[in-house]
Amino acid sequence: LKLTERQFVEKLRRAARRRMGASTRRGLHLRQGIGDDCAVLSGAGKYDLLITTDLMLEGVHFRREWQQADSLGHKVLARGLSDIAAMGGIPRHAFLSLALPRGTDFRWVDQFFAGLFRLAESNGVTLAGGDTAASMSGVVADIVVIGEAPRRKAILRSGARPGDEIWVTGVLGGAAAGLDLLRQGKRIARRTQTLRPLFYPQPRLSIGRWLSRRGLASAMMDLSDGLSIDLARLCQASGVGACIDADAIPRLRRTPLEYALHGGEDFELLFTVSARRAGKIPTQVEGARLTRIGQIQRGRRLRLIRAGREEVLPVLGFEHF
Amino acid sequence: LKLTERQFVEKLRRAARRRMGASTRRGLHLRQGIGDDCAVLSGAGKYDLLITTDLMLEGVHFRREWQQADSLGHKVLARGLSDIAAMGGIPRHAFLSLALPRGTDFRWVDQFFAGLFRLAESNGVTLAGGDTAASMSGVVADIVVIGEAPRRKAILRSGARPGDEIWVTGVLGGAAAGLDLLRQGKRIARRTQTLRPLFYPQPRLSIGRWLSRRGLASAMMDLSDGLSIDLARLCQASGVGACIDADAIPRLRRTPLEYALHGGEDFELLFTVSARRAGKIPTQVEGARLTRIGQIQRGRRLRLIRAGREEVLPVLGFEHF
Repeated sequence: LKLTERQFVEKLRRAARRRMGASTRRGLHLRQGIGDDCAVLSGAGKYDLLITTDLMLEGVHFRREWQQADSLGHKVLARGLSDIAAMGGIPRHAFLSLALPRGTDFRWVDQFFAGLFRLAESNGVTLAGGDTAASMSGVVADIVVIGEAPRRKAILRSGARPGDEIWVTGVLGGAAAGLDLLRQGKRIARRTQTLRPLFYPQPRLSIGRWLSRRGLASAMMDLSDGLSIDLARLCQASGVGACIDADAIPRLRRTPLEYALHGGEDFELLFTVSARRAGKIPTQVEGARLTRIGQIQRGRRLRLIRAGREEVLPVLGFEHF
Repeated sequence: LKLTERQFVEKLRRAARRRMGASTRRGLHLRQGIGDDCAVLSGAGKYDLLITTDLMLEGVHFRREWQQADSLGHKVLARGLSDIAAMGGIPRHAFLSLALPRGTDFRWVDQFFAGLFRLAESNGVTLAGGDTAASMSGVVADIVVIGEAPRRKAILRSGARPGDEIWVTGVLGGAAAGLDLLRQGKRIARRTQTLRPLFYPQPRLSIGRWLSRRGLASAMMDLSDGLSIDLARLCQASGVGACIDADAIPRLRRTPLEYALHGGEDFELLFTVSARRAGKIPTQVEGARLTRIGQIQRGRRLRLIRAGREEVLPVLGFEHF
């Protein structure tokens, strides 16, 4: 199979579009389908429904020997919550499909749920259903999160316009730096602070809602696969290009630029703001930095300013395919 | 891990119940959580939302060497639609998380989607999103189906009362008979008719809605794991016992009683009807047989009448755990 994730998503999207006529006649209709952080369904009420699914496989997305069970439970849900944050939404209910190898330790399962429930509880999210199975190989976890956003107010990837400023929350590259430590086989206990961004990412729900309530973001998505590839997706969805400034990208001391540019799993928010509204963005919201890193441009090209020179932005983020 | 699926679901349900307070304050609230065919969410509109997830793993739920890709695509969605049928609901949108081993043939993927889309289209269902990944072992598919039912009209498992009649749709044991053929290594081409119930199960959506519109079923679920274990689940949810008549259980000629009693994946509907309303159930609806197979009783015991004698109903259905 030579499909990249992008080709695969394109394939799905085309197939799904052909068949959309039939189900839009009545009831819930699909405002935004495949290709954004969440699907958006509109019904009769004042709120649109946001739905996201995230699949995590042992050996592909994580290693059990590197990651404690409660961190995995946390992260499975955090991925879904981050997609809700990326639309400016409020998460409500989660559904978990979980397959475990026979012989999985009881305590492992308890700790997995402890991590998941801690994050669910602190965000007012209920575990409302799911499915279970025995796995022949590793752990498989698929999380579905259902959220809400005021009618027509979900922030899509497709709203960026030339001239808009490009912003990010927090600092980037922390998860990649943690992964790097693990790959080097360093002793982990002493480095827990360095591993926190990788093991306990905090979905940016309150910032997403803050931006949504004020109508400040023209487009938004979460950084799950890396700034360069995720920015490319936002630009593709909006039909625009972009130029970002390497020096502006917020990262911790000693984090290589490459980790901030191409490292996945930071779960920070990437958003755009019209030039007219950019003055309303503070440098900090709800305890997290907001940083302007570049500008949306006409055309389709992605550029990086590094050491005063403009070059092509290499798109290298993580693809699970 | 020694958890059975039932213990696992119980564990989840208890954990989820403890945390339900927080999220019921506002917006979508959970009318029915873990432990039915679908979760039921109520919002502001005239319709409740039905949500179900079904996880299928290669080597656990299917074998690729036995099953064509389009049949697998069909069945992945059919499982989810059957859960919507079991609530008397109308399916609207599906979300698919799919992991494929590297090297999966392009045509296999196209056929998988052809099977899935054919069933989606004939039921007015849109593929609205999902996630993809490369798998280190076999195919992993998790389907989410979102449907609707008129407010408070979803048919739960918990409504059966002593004296209610027990009914099933269609004939039982067909999927188990097909699986038996495959296990024997018989040549498949000549036997397609026998394999149809296993490979192309038809979710009973129109019958489910027919029963729902008329308010005839006091409880309902779909037969995914086998009549004996699924009846035990319905009785447990309703706090009742049951007695069924072996001779009444509808099955094809030469299908052993054991397949009809304990074989999974028939995806027929099991429902109960109050004695007062039982006269309104015809012997056929929308081209499928409806058959009375027993009665709900006080207490918790499950009994089987076989050759004129009453015995304990052995509960042997398929558990994925």
